[in-house]
Amino acid sequence: MIVFLNGKLVPEPEATVPVFDRSFLYGDGVFESLRVSQGQPFRWAQHLRRLEDGAAGLHIDPPFPADELRNAVDRLVDANALPEAVLRITLSRGVGARGYSPRGATNPTVVMSLHPLPEAAGRSDLRWALATSRFRLPPDDPLSRWKTANKLLQVLARAEAEQAGADEALLLNARGELCETSSGNLFWVEGNRILTPPVQAGLLPGITRAVVLELAPAVGLLPAEESGTARRLAQSDGAFVTLSSLGVVEVGAVDGQRLRSSPHTAGLRMAYQERLAQECATGSP
Amino acid sequence: MIVFLNGKLVPEPEATVPVFDRSFLYGDGVFESLRVSQGQPFRWAQHLRRLEDGAAGLHIDPPFPADELRNAVDRLVDANALPEAVLRITLSRGVGARGYSPRGATNPTVVMSLHPLPEAAGRSDLRWALATSRFRLPPDDPLSRWKTANKLLQVLARAEAEQAGADEALLLNARGELCETSSGNLFWVEGNRILTPPVQAGLLPGITRAVVLELAPAVGLLPAEESGTARRLAQSDGAFVTLSSLGVVEVGAVDGQRLRSSPHTAGLRMAYQERLAQECATGSP
Repeated sequence: MIVFLNGKLVPEPEATVPVFDRSFLYGDGVFESLRVSQGQPFRWAQHLRRLEDGAAGLHIDPPFPADELRNAVDRLVDANALPEAVLRITLSRGVGARGYSPRGATNPTVVMSLHPLPEAAGRSDLRWALATSRFRLPPDDPLSRWKTANKLLQVLARAEAEQAGADEALLLNARGELCETSSGNLFWVEGNRILTPPVQAGLLPGITRAVVLELAPAVGLLPAEESGTARRLAQSDGAFVTLSSLGVVEVGAVDGQRLRSSPHTAGLRMAYQERLAQECATGSP
Repeated sequence: MIVFLNGKLVPEPEATVPVFDRSFLYGDGVFESLRVSQGQPFRWAQHLRRLEDGAAGLHIDPPFPADELRNAVDRLVDANALPEAVLRITLSRGVGARGYSPRGATNPTVVMSLHPLPEAAGRSDLRWALATSRFRLPPDDPLSRWKTANKLLQVLARAEAEQAGADEALLLNARGELCETSSGNLFWVEGNRILTPPVQAGLLPGITRAVVLELAPAVGLLPAEESGTARRLAQSDGAFVTLSSLGVVEVGAVDGQRLRSSPHTAGLRMAYQERLAQECATGSP
């Protein structure tokens, strides 16, 4: 695999960072994961905006202008001959002095890497079993809206769910409200409404979530942000998770309790796949 | 500087980790920072126990037995000729598959590095101005008792405090209770009592905090864990912060309001320095 590291394409064994890089020491950085299809990054502008918002929030100056990064994606896709992939972009604060103070850390690290699609990508019968995590997200977390490199709670929640035989963790916030899954956003269906928790619940507003909210009216659905509980989810007409690597994934069960299956989930899954194919064919914005 | 990396001593330019190391990607690891004096790591056993507790909590198997790590500290001190230093030990989950699931990441990364003492170390007139952070710690956080590599909140709180002209950030929890500072524990004095918030407030119980709690009776003080508010701190007879790199540091002011100065702070500072010198002279446990 060829990796983009601080402006250069390098073979994977040379893609290393100092042990004093602050993202290694403290998770002091932000990242994005996005779908590349037909060689084009899907919703590049939205992902880049979120990365830049996070960088601004962390007071990290991105060392490459947006068009240079965009250009590097093309080089990366070519070098790896991987037009269908997941792209990860990492922006770390880089090396600084020991300790939490970011003073003097003025050379950020930028990494971009391509990864094969998960095996499950494109499977229309994909259905996830969720397990409710004992880890709770803090509501109104000022850090939650950025995709930071502090993901240990998500790592442990995911591991715990897999240990319990589930596919993914369902995360509630400290108030017991539905939030998201470890790596995606949660939606549930009530009649012709599709509902998803608001950002203030403490979740990361995903780009796939935004695309689904945008596509819903075209397939006759009314989207809204509403708070919910495990009970509301259990009584819904169906539920799904949105994430950039897989798009729309139906939730089959939560904590061993089967959920209804809504035809709207399949409708949105297809609408999403079509939009992905269409935008990437013409060069996604 | 010579660094310990996965069993070898290497010069700093060679001390690198893959960009796919999970502590770089997700902060998926734990660490310790401890004082080395007269070439001996202070309270090695306690720091190692916390590191091992964290590793167990994260389901990471430390790849080196304790005695091998301890031995490596001696080699590191010799190689760097730095008998007075701060030692950092990092245990990362290492490289795995893309995504939060830790499945398949079975080769942890271990780094140990020595750092010169902060300039302020040993200054008896050191007094910190604290600024209360707008970032709040989640109370009863199951992750707070381990020193994980997810420290972005602490980084941003510290940066914000420095921006405001203060030395360090005072962190409250979401309930508005006193917790800790970005990199140390908080104590305040009331008569002959020294008080510090309980772990359940959402704080990391520091080893220096434990040493101070242990030393207090010998200097005629009664230690206790109690919840407090900003008001209680403001009305106290004095306050101080404990951290491994500097020991006991008096708090001069909070948000621009001067605090009283308690003679007990200087007493504990000296008792701590003596204990450090004494244990490291004989080989700290």
